[in-house]
Amino acid sequence: MSEIEEAINRMKKVSLIITGPDGTVARSNIDNKSDVNKYIYNVGDLVDKARSIIRDVDPSNDMTLLRFTLRKHDIIIAPGKNFRIIIVQETNKDATTEEKT
Amino acid sequence: MSEIEEAINRMKKVSLIITGPDGTVARSNIDNKSDVNKYIYNVGDLVDKARSIIRDVDPSNDMTLLRFTLRKHDIIIAPGKNFRIIIVQETNKDATTEEKT
Repeated sequence: MSEIEEAINRMKKVSLIITGPDGTVARSNIDNKSDVNKYIYNVGDLVDKARSIIRDVDPSNDMTLLRFTLRKHDIIIAPGKNFRIIIVQETNKDATTEEKT
Repeated sequence: MSEIEEAINRMKKVSLIITGPDGTVARSNIDNKSDVNKYIYNVGDLVDKARSIIRDVDPSNDMTLLRFTLRKHDIIIAPGKNFRIIIVQETNKDATTEEKT
C-alpha cells in the first residue's frame, strides 16, 4: 500500500480523494483546503444524478468518467463500482487570480 | 453562415446541437436519433446544476466545459453565456454493441 501513499504524496498540484461507494474517505492527500473539500462533496451528487440519467436513456450504457473544466480547476471523477476517485487539479489558465489565492 | 452549415454536415459520427440560453435549438445535425435527443435534453439540466454548485463554492470560478465519458458515447457540453453547444460523439470502445446498433 505504501507505493500508493508515495504516489499520492508526490502529486503536488493535484488534490485526490478516494472514497468507498458510500462516500467514506479511503485515501486523501488534502490537508484542509476548504474549497477543494466543498467541490469534492458537492460534485459527488452530480455523479449519481448523471449516472441515473444515462441509464434511463440506455440501460446498457454507463458513465466511466465525468470531467468539469473550470476556470481555475479541472475536476475529474471516476465512479467505479466499489470506489470513487475524485481529482481536483489546479490549472494556471486564470493567471490574474493566481496572486490572490 | 453557410460555412457553419457545411462544417456541421461534415461531422458524420458527431451529433451536434446548438441551443440558445433558453434551450431553443438554433442548429442541429440530428435527424431523429431518439437516444441522442434524450441525452441532449437530459444532460442539459446537469449543466445548470453543476454551474450553480461551482459558483456556490467559489463565485469567481466558472465551468467552461463538462464532459461525460460513457461506454458508447462521449457527451461534451460547452455552456456559453448566450448559447450552449452539446456534442454527442460515438466512441467505438464497446465493439460488441457495434453490431447491434
